[in-house]
Amino acid sequence: MLKEILENVRAKVPLIHCITNYVTVNDCANMLLACGGSPIMADDINEVEEITALCNGLCLNIGTLNERTIASMLKAGKKANALSHPVLLDPVGTGASQLRTSTTQRLLEEVRFSVIRGNVSEIKTISQGKGTTKGVDADISDKITDDNLDESIAFAKALSAKTGAVIVITGAIDLVADSQKAYICRNGHPIMSRITGTGCMLSAMMSAFVAAHSSNPTEAAAAAVCAMGLCGELAYEKVQKAQAGTGSFRTYLIDAVSLLDGETLEGGAKLESR
Amino acid sequence: MLKEILENVRAKVPLIHCITNYVTVNDCANMLLACGGSPIMADDINEVEEITALCNGLCLNIGTLNERTIASMLKAGKKANALSHPVLLDPVGTGASQLRTSTTQRLLEEVRFSVIRGNVSEIKTISQGKGTTKGVDADISDKITDDNLDESIAFAKALSAKTGAVIVITGAIDLVADSQKAYICRNGHPIMSRITGTGCMLSAMMSAFVAAHSSNPTEAAAAAVCAMGLCGELAYEKVQKAQAGTGSFRTYLIDAVSLLDGETLEGGAKLESR
Amino acid sequence: MLKEILENVRAKVPLIHCITNYVTVNDCANMLLACGGSPIMADDINEVEEITALCNGLCLNIGTLNERTIASMLKAGKKANALSHPVLLDPVGTGASQLRTSTTQRLLEEVRFSVIRGNVSEIKTISQGKGTTKGVDADISDKITDDNLDESIAFAKALSAKTGAVIVITGAIDLVADSQKAYICRNGHPIMSRITGTGCMLSAMMSAFVAAHSSNPTEAAAAAVCAMGLCGELAYEKVQKAQAGTGSFRTYLIDAVSLLDGETLEGGAKLESR
Repeated sequence: MLKEILENVRAKVPLIHCITNYVTVNDCANMLLACGGSPIMADDINEVEEITALCNGLCLNIGTLNERTIASMLKAGKKANALSHPVLLDPVGTGASQLRTSTTQRLLEEVRFSVIRGNVSEIKTISQGKGTTKGVDADISDKITDDNLDESIAFAKALSAKTGAVIVITGAIDLVADSQKAYICRNGHPIMSRITGTGCMLSAMMSAFVAAHSSNPTEAAAAAVCAMGLCGELAYEKVQKAQAGTGSFRTYLIDAVSLLDGETLEGGAKLESR
Repeated sequence: MLKEILENVRAKVPLIHCITNYVTVNDCANMLLACGGSPIMADDINEVEEITALCNGLCLNIGTLNERTIASMLKAGKKANALSHPVLLDPVGTGASQLRTSTTQRLLEEVRFSVIRGNVSEIKTISQGKGTTKGVDADISDKITDDNLDESIAFAKALSAKTGAVIVITGAIDLVADSQKAYICRNGHPIMSRITGTGCMLSAMMSAFVAAHSSNPTEAAAAAVCAMGLCGELAYEKVQKAQAGTGSFRTYLIDAVSLLDGETLEGGAKLESR
Repeated sequence: MLKEILENVRAKVPLIHCITNYVTVNDCANMLLACGGSPIMADDINEVEEITALCNGLCLNIGTLNERTIASMLKAGKKANALSHPVLLDPVGTGASQLRTSTTQRLLEEVRFSVIRGNVSEIKTISQGKGTTKGVDADISDKITDDNLDESIAFAKALSAKTGAVIVITGAIDLVADSQKAYICRNGHPIMSRITGTGCMLSAMMSAFVAAHSSNPTEAAAAAVCAMGLCGELAYEKVQKAQAGTGSFRTYLIDAVSLLDGETLEGGAKLESR
């Protein structure tokens, strides 16, 4: 499954419309290209419908949201829904401010999402309608571990049933769930949280995977999570060999995704389903 | 000619005012510094005239245009015209939305450009006033090849005569033309399209070349095209040696421009004139 | 002192709210993570107070200021003052336009800053209320040298007394002063000015140092200046060994900060106090 999904991305070159934050936008564009997709960033309300119509998927990321771009996200999301394009939500920092929490709620009310990807804290905020997010990192007390894995899976499946979206919770253990089935991915490395944007890059890449494998967005999201985690491991190996630091890690992460082939992904994935 | 132009950039350190997209703005700033210029990014309508007046050239890039920055581009462009500073237009994605197409037209009506640089699709849209741009990449059916080179040159010369701007069409074969003379550059490598921003970076760098060699913007633009293409080749060699990917390619591309000297440029350029 | 301050940053992981320019924002976020802090970028007026309240410090950078973000800076600054969070001002390009100069003045009138960090030209503009900034680089005629070091120290101490902020002037020689005491740092390398954002990255990192060592912001600022300068030297050594250029330098600079330990900082710092 993983091999086919990656090869589909490379073959179909899905064009992804991103309305995203200005912190990691360059990394998102380069990651989309590295995985085999193609990016277009456009956020003016007077063009977002036309741009989305040209694309194969839409990625909405609220990392540096403002009044202007919130309106554009809503408009683009509705248009993508009308065209049956997959739409992914990355609710960066939801729970950290009323604006983020209420914008997330409004997006969820007015746009139908194929996938919602966040850390535990962000996904819990979505579930509860309020939250205790400290900045953009998950609360330590709420991380997914082997001890709470069964409850976490049940939580994610229930939230998927409620929202209609595949729920992706990333952290040391990654969880991908629809209402029926869940995938657990144990790839990745802690250094991934020492650079900005691994979450945003994953969301952008996942949008391309889902667009290229729209028959099963849950599988597509699981494949993207594995690909990013595995590439994090490969990049960390290079960092260690080079006695390098986090600047090089970011470069090697994009390198690894651009060089990833289906066999390596199949062989390196630590994925199980429940 | 190429050696002198590059050395002029290094000696004069032209300060370039960029009103550009937030996706590749950091790459544009670093590329300007790498080639020997100096960047200043400023887009508030209340300061763009003063900032442009301090500079030696202006680069307008519509990659993530919005109402606020369109007004700033028009104001800065008119001021630069009044001061006889060279102004370059990078019409990113024109044809992909009415907003981009109409903004491009308005810029062309109200501002006098020294250079317009885009891919075939963008330049065709400018020529036709409408287009079939798929995102920000040129239509495959419209790429410049040896088979259609003569027509392409005639097209570019005619468009230059009509607009008064040097026309630069980049792709596998790059074309630089004014109404009288055309340069064809065969430098470059396909990996350049696997990172975001090579076009934007070239536009920024070209603005510095034109500002430093204002007596002949056609030659200056041709030199910039060769420099970028050659550095793409040099960076790709390093990527291959290191068995690296597209993340490293981007770093090595900026490295190569920062290390480029006049002799290497003269020796490596694959440039002919018609 | 230096070792303890760096270890404090690593232990406390200060969360820094940045309202900053879109050119170097990704570098600032990665630099904050590399030094041991944590970044959150948010600039919408409807959330900046809540975001600042979650954080340990605020960094205001006017590099690509606009009407919308100026209002957000003022609001966030006042909130941080009310909460006694340290606030740092990076007055990028002040003096280059009326908008930058008047915004800087307004920020200084309405917000109490712990630290102001700029180049000589920017700091002189703050002192004079007007300036002759050429873009974002200090005027060559105004650089700090051994010949004018005593006057420069007196100037910085006087400005600190007037503003209540630690004054940090960076250049070939870096100066950090409060009204009583000054530090002179001779770390660094000229290649640091050949990439964009070393000043912005230093300001972001300094905000984390000051937040983690709030008992003595002057010492904290001096430690940040040394850390950045020393890492610039270490990164340049790697660039030379690799025969690389400015693209690699930027990566290695972040690498060096992420790998820096207290002993290396103590051993490599070229710091004296007056």
